[in-house]
Parts: sequence; structure tokens; C-alpha cells
Amino acid sequence: MKDTIKLIKVKEDIQADNDLLAQHLRKSLREEKTFLINLMSSPGAGKTSLLLQTITHMRDTFRIAVIEADIDSSVDAERIAASGITAIQLQTDGFCHLDVPMVQQGLDSLDDEKLDLIFIENVGNLVCPAEFDTGAALDVMILSVPEGDDKPLKYPLMFSKCHALIVNKLDYLDTPLADFDMNLLEERVKKINKDIKIFPLSSRTGEGVTSWTKWLSQKVSEHNY
Amino acid sequence: MKDTIKLIKVKEDIQADNDLLAQHLRKSLREEKTFLINLMSSPGAGKTSLLLQTITHMRDTFRIAVIEADIDSSVDAERIAASGITAIQLQTDGFCHLDVPMVQQGLDSLDDEKLDLIFIENVGNLVCPAEFDTGAALDVMILSVPEGDDKPLKYPLMFSKCHALIVNKLDYLDTPLADFDMNLLEERVKKINKDIKIFPLSSRTGEGVTSWTKWLSQKVSEHNY
Repeated sequence: MKDTIKLIKVKEDIQADNDLLAQHLRKSLREEKTFLINLMSSPGAGKTSLLLQTITHMRDTFRIAVIEADIDSSVDAERIAASGITAIQLQTDGFCHLDVPMVQQGLDSLDDEKLDLIFIENVGNLVCPAEFDTGAALDVMILSVPEGDDKPLKYPLMFSKCHALIVNKLDYLDTPLADFDMNLLEERVKKINKDIKIFPLSSRTGEGVTSWTKWLSQKVSEHNY
Repeated sequence: MKDTIKLIKVKEDIQADNDLLAQHLRKSLREEKTFLINLMSSPGAGKTSLLLQTITHMRDTFRIAVIEADIDSSVDAERIAASGITAIQLQTDGFCHLDVPMVQQGLDSLDDEKLDLIFIENVGNLVCPAEFDTGAALDVMILSVPEGDDKPLKYPLMFSKCHALIVNKLDYLDTPLADFDMNLLEERVKKINKDIKIFPLSSRTGEGVTSWTKWLSQKVSEHNY
């Protein structure tokens, strides 16, 4: 068990350093009137599709860019860039989460543009990204219907850390395969985090997307005022 | 970037220690004629449902137990125990993967029984569990259809480490929502790991499960001979 104890110790030091950097970054982004949002989920929950839908609704009002994190590949950044939005690809090379120095590298490459809103698409992982503050003004997670309504029981830290939960792939509820109970999910989530905003939607059909983008637009406007 | 470099260094040391422990554990389980299998996937891909199906098919032939890893909660272990199979719940308390000392704790609690086959249900995470050898004779991952056919591009390490890939929730292919290309998936997987065995199946309907359990039964028999 010695190794385990050693790892936790180092992790705590790194987290404390990272928290300090995150506070500084948040303050300086506030002064620059740039809103940074950190989007987290399991692999395949639909982060990139949601981003594309969200950008479509908000690009006329705000100047937007995206920082994409992936362990490998750049397929997500290519999808974003194809929509005409600047996308920075961070390849984490095995790292399971983003921390502030990695986010800062992404921000530095966007330094030439004056931006209102920058999305971080974090590594697809419900565990580790919840432990590392990115410096974002808002933490948002996506849970997709096929993953099941029991996820708050298993990954409580992620649910406890987020300001908003997007329940994506709502169209799966119409298939005969669905055994997902939205009321039960909400009850489980609110028990962990009573203030969290929940947005059920489908990035595919667009259903429910405007409730989310209206709420987000208001947050951005308040922050950048 | 100093923190990042520090973390990687410690991680490498811990991994080297863990690899050594894993080799010892694998050897001693071979001598005891106990087959240990490590099951990994994203959250919600269906590890527990697959386990229940697999146990149903194999429990008449083999003495089976399950080591369940969860960050929190014991809902999965309760589902397994309800089927009359011994289930050990390891709560990792925030840890994002299992290592050998954690697995060893689970094995120690099973020490009274002579077992042929022990399943580890690892933490739901496509990233970190791929980096830590558990000492298992076989590493198997589950990808579910709703997660998408692009996952080998994004999480190559997991696909490269596994002996078998189970493509679960095959029944989703029959819904109008499916945009999953099985041939494309196989092509992407084989490019990373040409020897991997692929088993498309549905834990819900039982379709395809016997191909998987026949193959696994043969592996167990060969190992425990």
C-alpha cells in the first residue's frame, strides 16, 4: 500500500498548486471580459455535437473559440474548425485530465483574438477532470441517456462540482430500449448538488437546446458586463 | 509545466513497481489454477449487465467470484450478489483505476474459496485503467454502440492493451438513431491491435453472448489445465 499513499500525497500537492493557478486565471479572465467554460463527460456522451449546436445558437452574439483536449487525434477540433470557429487542439499524450498550465497553453495560442466565450472540451472521463480546476468560470457536464440514470451514485464528485448538467441524447427515450428514469436521475443529482441546473436535450434533433443556450448567454453577459 | 513533469515522473515509478507486482500475481494465480480477468469500459457501457449474462452461461462449469471496483457506492456488487455469486466491493475513494495492491485486497477477501474464475470490474474509465496492469491473465474492454465508432481514434491505449473487445448494446443498431459503422470500428481497432478478438453482442437480448462465453471458457480451461 506504500505506493498508493505516495501517489495521493503528490496528487494533493499538485492539486493545491493547480487551485492557486486556477484562481489567478479566473480573475484575469474576468478582467479581460472573457468567459471560459469547462465541458466534461464520459467518452461518447456527445461533447463535440453539443458544442456545434451551442455555437450555432450563440455565434451571432458572441465571439467564440474552442480548446479541444484529446489524448490523441484531432478529429474533434477538425469538426469544430469546419464550422468556421477557431479550434485549438491540445493533445494530452496520455494525460487523463486538463490542468491550468495545459489550459493556459491553449489560451496563449488564442491570444491574438479578442474573444467573449471560450469553450474547453475536456478529456472524455467522468473521474479525473472533476478533481482539477481549469480556471473556468463555469463547469458543465454532459450525461447521455444510454449511460443510465445511476451515474450520480457512482461518480458523485463530478456531479457535485458542476454548475449545470446537460442530459443529452434525449431522443433515445423514444426507443423501446430506454430504461432511463429522468425523475429518478434528477432526484439523485439534486441530493448531491441542490443548486445544479439540469438541461435535458438532444444535440441531434435540437430539442431543448435553446433553454441551455439562453441560460448560458445570460451567464456570459453577466460575467463580461 | 514543472508540475506536469513531476507528476509523470512519479507515475512512472509507481507503474514500474506495479508492473513487477503484477508479474508476481499472474504467476501465482497460474500456479493456483485461478483465472483472473480484468473488465474495463467507459461509465455506462454495461460492465455489470455483461457480467451477469456471462455468469449465467458459465456458472455451471466454473466456480466464479467478482471483484467490483467503484469510486463510491456498492450498487454493482449488490446486483452481482443477488445472483448468488460472491462479490467483493472495492471502494476506491476517488481513485480512477485499480492497481495490484488494491486487487490483492480483493483476492485476500476471497481466500477461503477455491475459485476457477475471478472477474475484476474496473473503474468506469477508458483512460487510466489502461495504464495499470492488474495482474489479470486477460484484459477485456467493452465499448457500447451509443458511444460511437470513433473511440479507437481517441483512446488508443485501451484498445491496444486488450485481448478482447466486446461491442455491447448491439440492439441500438436497430433503432433509427444509430450512426455506428461496425466495419469502420473493426478497421480502426485492428489498425491499433491486429490480434484483438471482437465480440459484438447485446447483454440485454443475449444476442452474441455465447460466442464470447465459449471463447472465454476455452481460455479459462487452457489456463487452469
